[in-house]
Amino acid sequence: MIKLAVDAMGGDNAPSEIVKGVNLAIKKHEDLEIVLYGDKEQIEKYLEKNDRVSIVHTPYKLDMGEKNPVMAIRGNKELSLVKAFSAVHDKECNGAVTCGPTQCVVVGAHMIVKKLPGMQRVALAPSLPCVGGKSRMICDVGANVELKPEHIEQITLFASTFLKKTRGVENPLVGLLNIGVEPGKGREQDRETFKVLTENPNINFYGNVEPTEILNTPCDLLVNDGFSGNLITKTIEGTAKAIGQLLKENIKSSLGGKIGYLFMRKNLARFKKILSSDEVGGSLLFGVDGVIVKAHGSSKAYAVSRAIELCMEGVNGGYIETMRKYLEEETNTENK
Amino acid sequence: MIKLAVDAMGGDNAPSEIVKGVNLAIKKHEDLEIVLYGDKEQIEKYLEKNDRVSIVHTPYKLDMGEKNPVMAIRGNKELSLVKAFSAVHDKECNGAVTCGPTQCVVVGAHMIVKKLPGMQRVALAPSLPCVGGKSRMICDVGANVELKPEHIEQITLFASTFLKKTRGVENPLVGLLNIGVEPGKGREQDRETFKVLTENPNINFYGNVEPTEILNTPCDLLVNDGFSGNLITKTIEGTAKAIGQLLKENIKSSLGGKIGYLFMRKNLARFKKILSSDEVGGSLLFGVDGVIVKAHGSSKAYAVSRAIELCMEGVNGGYIETMRKYLEEETNTENK
Repeated sequence: MIKLAVDAMGGDNAPSEIVKGVNLAIKKHEDLEIVLYGDKEQIEKYLEKNDRVSIVHTPYKLDMGEKNPVMAIRGNKELSLVKAFSAVHDKECNGAVTCGPTQCVVVGAHMIVKKLPGMQRVALAPSLPCVGGKSRMICDVGANVELKPEHIEQITLFASTFLKKTRGVENPLVGLLNIGVEPGKGREQDRETFKVLTENPNINFYGNVEPTEILNTPCDLLVNDGFSGNLITKTIEGTAKAIGQLLKENIKSSLGGKIGYLFMRKNLARFKKILSSDEVGGSLLFGVDGVIVKAHGSSKAYAVSRAIELCMEGVNGGYIETMRKYLEEETNTENK
Repeated sequence: MIKLAVDAMGGDNAPSEIVKGVNLAIKKHEDLEIVLYGDKEQIEKYLEKNDRVSIVHTPYKLDMGEKNPVMAIRGNKELSLVKAFSAVHDKECNGAVTCGPTQCVVVGAHMIVKKLPGMQRVALAPSLPCVGGKSRMICDVGANVELKPEHIEQITLFASTFLKKTRGVENPLVGLLNIGVEPGKGREQDRETFKVLTENPNINFYGNVEPTEILNTPCDLLVNDGFSGNLITKTIEGTAKAIGQLLKENIKSSLGGKIGYLFMRKNLARFKKILSSDEVGGSLLFGVDGVIVKAHGSSKAYAVSRAIELCMEGVNGGYIETMRKYLEEETNTENK
């Protein structure tokens, strides 16, 4: 049995869509148990009774526009996010899912779940839309605006371990997101990161990857700092959105288009589903001592259920224990 | 009459597609005169005779994989790119078009065409695919991997002047590409750039723009450093390419899809055309004392003809003279 903590009050559609997402996931997975943290009365409005779901009541929640996460989290131990994360830290739950604001999730995980000993930075890692039957992970997408080459190296090891343990990717191929394929391309930090990733025997480094190949690269994992990663994932989202609109307008603009649509509407629906960020389920927060999933603030029920499944996948894979051992060995070697 | 210099030997498809592009443009525009720089014998194979096209022969051209642009350009004044740029510098031509390698174009423009007095940096500025009937410009996309806030400020003024003079955008609305909309978002340099753009009375600053809105923003111009801009434009290209593939695969996967396609193939062709980077015609190189257009290395004839039209637009607009005066006044004010 996997027991997950779900922050019922995080996100633009809390608690209704969060709870509905829990309803979906719990019906689908018999080995799943969920504890919802938030306003009991509001949660019960949407919750379908199930022995495997319980509620821990708290009237406090983070504001989606919270400007000072550190103060907010330090100041109130009763926040739904803090309680959900504490359940992970205290080993009452195996992982946590939240749609709360990114910086609050990062800060909260740092302060409550805490980094694995030896880990220098945490990173947000979502999967990209699955194109050509291949799933690709990208990190960091915004836990840190800046990262040093050695931070990217450690995060790469973490993400590679995740892909090996949970997705059966034997020797994850890693690409450095950059503005050109040649080794000398990019900023000074990119040239240094290129060197560090090349020299690490535990990283299967492919080389630089230009974002023209972002959804076609043979790589399993794409890395760079959180500013670049955030711009890239948001550009994918923005482009997909605009293309969807363009396609719709174009189809509607003629009779032929409208008739054609009747024939291929199933195809277009499937196409839309592949590109939908709902499918991805959110980002894993790598580097902390617990499986934490941060889903989009605008998540609806289905996206929440996918985020819960992503968290289950992480718990089942046991990547954190592998990474803990690796970091311990590394520290021991350094101390010798 | 507008007289443009075209580097016939730059790009992956030189000289055939370059010359064919010239054929297209010269037929379309009666006020256009073109001088082609490159291998006369090869050019003549593809050139349709026209009184308004002439060839200046040179057997030398830059290698598309040139690693040391400065040495290559300094070492050979007979390179087709160098000759084309020299024609602009010597006022024999009003502007130049090349599909040569980006860094060679930037270095060549610096060394031969030269920056406008008072200009600190140059920038590459393409237009984004036109969505919702709106054209948007983005810069820098790779002339500089790093830019200081005051460089971005000056480049923004340059691009705004271009939009006013050539495209009749009265008061170009400028957005700073960033990972969040709030003023405090991003790296230290982004917060500083935000401040600088806010305080400049000659810039109509909108605020931060997240790339989720890259093709939907009300802004006319989006700015940041060349590393970020390059990642973003390449991500748009990569996403559009992958989405096109996905759509095609999806349509082909069922009979309904195939029949639907027959009805809407015109709509889909129009849709594809809007997203095609060929339409955009390339990037203007802002900051130098001449209208320089750098088109994609992989440009085919149509894309080359669009690049020539972009160069004509720049020449007609006369934005360089406006910017020259502005920079002179600025220097005078500073010296007082």
